[in-house]
Amino acid sequence: MSETTPVPVESGDKSATALKKEQKKLEKERKIAEAKAKKAAEKSVSGEQNKNEKKQEQVEENNSNWGELPMNQSKEKIKREWTDVSQLNESSVGKSVLIRARLSTSRLQGANLCFVQLRDGLYTVQAVVAKGGANSKSMVQFVGQVPKESIVDVQANVVATSVPIESCTQKTVELQVTSFFVVSKSTLLPLQIEDLSRSQPLLDKQEEDLKQLEQLLRNTNLNEQEKTDLEKKKSECIKFVNVSQEKRLDNRALDLRVPAHQSIFRLQSGVCTLFREQLLTEGFIEIHSPKIISAASESGASVFKLNYFNTHAYLAQSPQLYKQMAICADFNKVFEIGPVFRAENSNTHRHLTEFVGLDLEMTFKDHYHEVLDTLDRLMTTIFHGLETRFSKELESVNNQYPFEPFKFTYPSPRFTFDEAAAMLAELNDPDYIVKDNDFNTRQEKRLGKIIKEKFGVDFFIVDKFHVEVRPFYTMPDPNNPQWANAYDLFMRGEEICSGAQRVHDAELLEKNAKAHGIVIEDIQGYIDSFKYGCSQHAGGGVGLERVVMLYLGLGNIRKASFCPRDPTRLTP
Amino acid sequence: MSETTPVPVESGDKSATALKKEQKKLEKERKIAEAKAKKAAEKSVSGEQNKNEKKQEQVEENNSNWGELPMNQSKEKIKREWTDVSQLNESSVGKSVLIRARLSTSRLQGANLCFVQLRDGLYTVQAVVAKGGANSKSMVQFVGQVPKESIVDVQANVVATSVPIESCTQKTVELQVTSFFVVSKSTLLPLQIEDLSRSQPLLDKQEEDLKQLEQLLRNTNLNEQEKTDLEKKKSECIKFVNVSQEKRLDNRALDLRVPAHQSIFRLQSGVCTLFREQLLTEGFIEIHSPKIISAASESGASVFKLNYFNTHAYLAQSPQLYKQMAICADFNKVFEIGPVFRAENSNTHRHLTEFVGLDLEMTFKDHYHEVLDTLDRLMTTIFHGLETRFSKELESVNNQYPFEPFKFTYPSPRFTFDEAAAMLAELNDPDYIVKDNDFNTRQEKRLGKIIKEKFGVDFFIVDKFHVEVRPFYTMPDPNNPQWANAYDLFMRGEEICSGAQRVHDAELLEKNAKAHGIVIEDIQGYIDSFKYGCSQHAGGGVGLERVVMLYLGLGNIRKASFCPRDPTRLTP
Repeated sequence: MSETTPVPVESGDKSATALKKEQKKLEKERKIAEAKAKKAAEKSVSGEQNKNEKKQEQVEENNSNWGELPMNQSKEKIKREWTDVSQLNESSVGKSVLIRARLSTSRLQGANLCFVQLRDGLYTVQAVVAKGGANSKSMVQFVGQVPKESIVDVQANVVATSVPIESCTQKTVELQVTSFFVVSKSTLLPLQIEDLSRSQPLLDKQEEDLKQLEQLLRNTNLNEQEKTDLEKKKSECIKFVNVSQEKRLDNRALDLRVPAHQSIFRLQSGVCTLFREQLLTEGFIEIHSPKIISAASESGASVFKLNYFNTHAYLAQSPQLYKQMAICADFNKVFEIGPVFRAENSNTHRHLTEFVGLDLEMTFKDHYHEVLDTLDRLMTTIFHGLETRFSKELESVNNQYPFEPFKFTYPSPRFTFDEAAAMLAELNDPDYIVKDNDFNTRQEKRLGKIIKEKFGVDFFIVDKFHVEVRPFYTMPDPNNPQWANAYDLFMRGEEICSGAQRVHDAELLEKNAKAHGIVIEDIQGYIDSFKYGCSQHAGGGVGLERVVMLYLGLGNIRKASFCPRDPTRLTP
Repeated sequence: MSETTPVPVESGDKSATALKKEQKKLEKERKIAEAKAKKAAEKSVSGEQNKNEKKQEQVEENNSNWGELPMNQSKEKIKREWTDVSQLNESSVGKSVLIRARLSTSRLQGANLCFVQLRDGLYTVQAVVAKGGANSKSMVQFVGQVPKESIVDVQANVVATSVPIESCTQKTVELQVTSFFVVSKSTLLPLQIEDLSRSQPLLDKQEEDLKQLEQLLRNTNLNEQEKTDLEKKKSECIKFVNVSQEKRLDNRALDLRVPAHQSIFRLQSGVCTLFREQLLTEGFIEIHSPKIISAASESGASVFKLNYFNTHAYLAQSPQLYKQMAICADFNKVFEIGPVFRAENSNTHRHLTEFVGLDLEMTFKDHYHEVLDTLDRLMTTIFHGLETRFSKELESVNNQYPFEPFKFTYPSPRFTFDEAAAMLAELNDPDYIVKDNDFNTRQEKRLGKIIKEKFGVDFFIVDKFHVEVRPFYTMPDPNNPQWANAYDLFMRGEEICSGAQRVHDAELLEKNAKAHGIVIEDIQGYIDSFKYGCSQHAGGGVGLERVVMLYLGLGNIRKASFCPRDPTRLTP
């Protein structure tokens, strides 16, 4: 059986009329769904009191194939075969499958038919409960009243659909339900998953229309009729709840259920896996350096201080010193994936106070470009791996947050800082003239655009930054004392990795530290560690959330952090 | 050319005379080495002043194939083929190889011959510099004076040895040096690598002998002659510097160079790799939960507090709540590898204030044993992987810290808490009668012994701990309200993992929290998250350092932590 009115896919590139029509339909569906959810929730709340009566009623009706299961306390081991929603396709047709999933939406059609959408992670499938055979009318009504987001066990026969079900990921099959049990019942949701899942272009369009109408309304020459018409249009324009990023984060456990968000964190997991796979293949080993440290590692200004028994301590701003300690200790190639803490009061789209650092450090034989090549190979391997192994997840993100596919080549275009500055200077715009030998954020973004236009790629490397803008432990260029053997990696014009050859000579390190005004006693141990023989080495640190945000073009790093931390957010 | 006096391997199972003889020889070697190191270091220190004069001298002698290289600033890219020490074996014979390694030891034999041991990580090889051909007498003398632990580039011909070189890991080959350059020169070491590498049984034997002599000296009936003899024996007995664990940690970068320690951290990296490999194969995804949190997650007593902008925050004592949040958010199987912070003032062999948690949480269909089975499969896969993939590292650890190979079966023996308590009760010893329904440390150790004797394994599981000793969020057993669906995993009689089925029902969770005297408002958000439908789930947390310590029988968790943190240690 196939549903007669499939919900069209939301998409960014539709004509205005199609979009309007779609909005209208979605709005209607939303109202119906909301009313039903409210009703179901009311029932669910009041249900506690007369559960027993109801249960009695159910038994009379014969509920051997439907109902609510008691809370699972692991009473028995049952040998049953389960099927994942993601596994359902043409090859499942004709089989009876047992599925555990969330009831995403349900729609009663009359007394004897109910359409249900089941969701598991980023996969959805349509199920139909119809009166007939062992299925009673009460069963159909019961299913229609199960609160959305409840977890259910469904036994069903898989049938092929005549028309693809566009509202589900599993479009070619449908489930004919033969038994339906609630495993864990939801109550009234503070936010609707549909609202959290709505495609960004649709919301942006609404926002834009609203702005335009408000601008028209500000026109003082309007007569009363015109005003009334515009006001009406304005009220009609607000069709969808546009849940703010903050409200989403306040309800993170719900917000994460959205298929696109499920996919973002599956991709995040993938970045870590690919990072490690590649480095382990190249002979790296993984280390775990301490996060509680006795002195500020990078800069005293942006460090979190904590009480440590009878003294105090700090949270590591990077594993820099420890990675280098590993190098001094003959672990020639090391990486670490771990939290990095920055007490910077930066409230931007790309700063977090706690993020995941993908760090590496390695010795090289002759030239730090051996390390830069490793970083290039590493990042492009990650990009390639995401593309090839996570196509479903990318599609799912794309549905809610359409983005340009990430372009890269290997080897990636590489420029010196001066070359990159010259490309910006060619614009003949004073805003893009680099000052103080460093890019600002706007200049970086613009550089990304220029390189995308010229070279067709979203990933590039800038080498030979000037010594003055890098830390004291950065190795100066041997040919030009103004340059450093230091580099940044960029994705879509935003920095995702900063790295350099480090000074491995105690004498030079002390000299440079002094020149930077650093109190030598504070870092004596660090300096001393290079006195007992140390290979030349270089490394870098990649911000995991930035990589995910920029690869997917998400626009806000909070979308790429499981539970983001910023100066104003400590929960959940 | 083969060295005539190879240093014998230190081993724990030698006869007393052999051990004595060995000790004597090692002692002699130590004295020679120390004198030489001192001399070399003096030269190295004073060398700065007359470097130019010396360089001049060297040029006159023709040093095209030896000398000190300038600090590497990545001046040029040189295309050269490098060989790792680990790659050297019979198949290398007849080749000329280029190697970068540490000069581990060197021994001049007369004016024209110098034996050198080169070390890279856990691998060592013998090299010989002999006058003849392009090699001058000055070159031989230069090599003999290079400070130990300097990093050197050596070009050499590989030859087969007639007698295995027992003092090196690469026993069947030797290098005939044709060029020798110092890449990074070491200064006088605060601790000798030989002392840090000495086999533990040898040190223990010395300790024991010393104790015995001191006991004899305490005998008041001794005459003067006897006293003098014993004092002499005592002074002779102290042959080896026994570097304390604390002193080792104070000089961690040197201590980690020791082959056994190199191996420990390669194994630690291996545990993480195997953990992830197995879980990714089983469909888990990796998450990264915040470490800075707004409220103490487990217990207020043992939490670190920090300043967070204008408020304060805490360091996560476990990712428990976040793993469960991931479950509520439909990530059905999640794991995390990350730091865990405990402000407990425990100064024991197995407690750290910061350690690496290997955490997992997963939904199950019918019974939490699905999760316990996963944990069993996971741990035994890790043990198996260490055994098969890291034999060289295990051998290297075993050389310094001999240990009984870790025994396990799959599935592992599994007991209920009551069964395990009964096994202890059978001993008829009041010390082993379990009180307050929980084991103490001694009882756990003894339990490990009993199970090793009865079942021949070092890994086992205890299930069904009593509810009263587990956190409020633990699911009670459905058949016996005194029991919980809670388990611990043990290695060699020490707990390495604690886990349970969690309460996924908001109502029961609130009830249990109240019964535990918890203020509901403090955890309202946590309780609420289970109101919107949540699958039954269970999980556990494994301590990485404990797994490594116990697998290798190291006896102190600090040996398995890169830079351990305890109540009295915050550095390095």
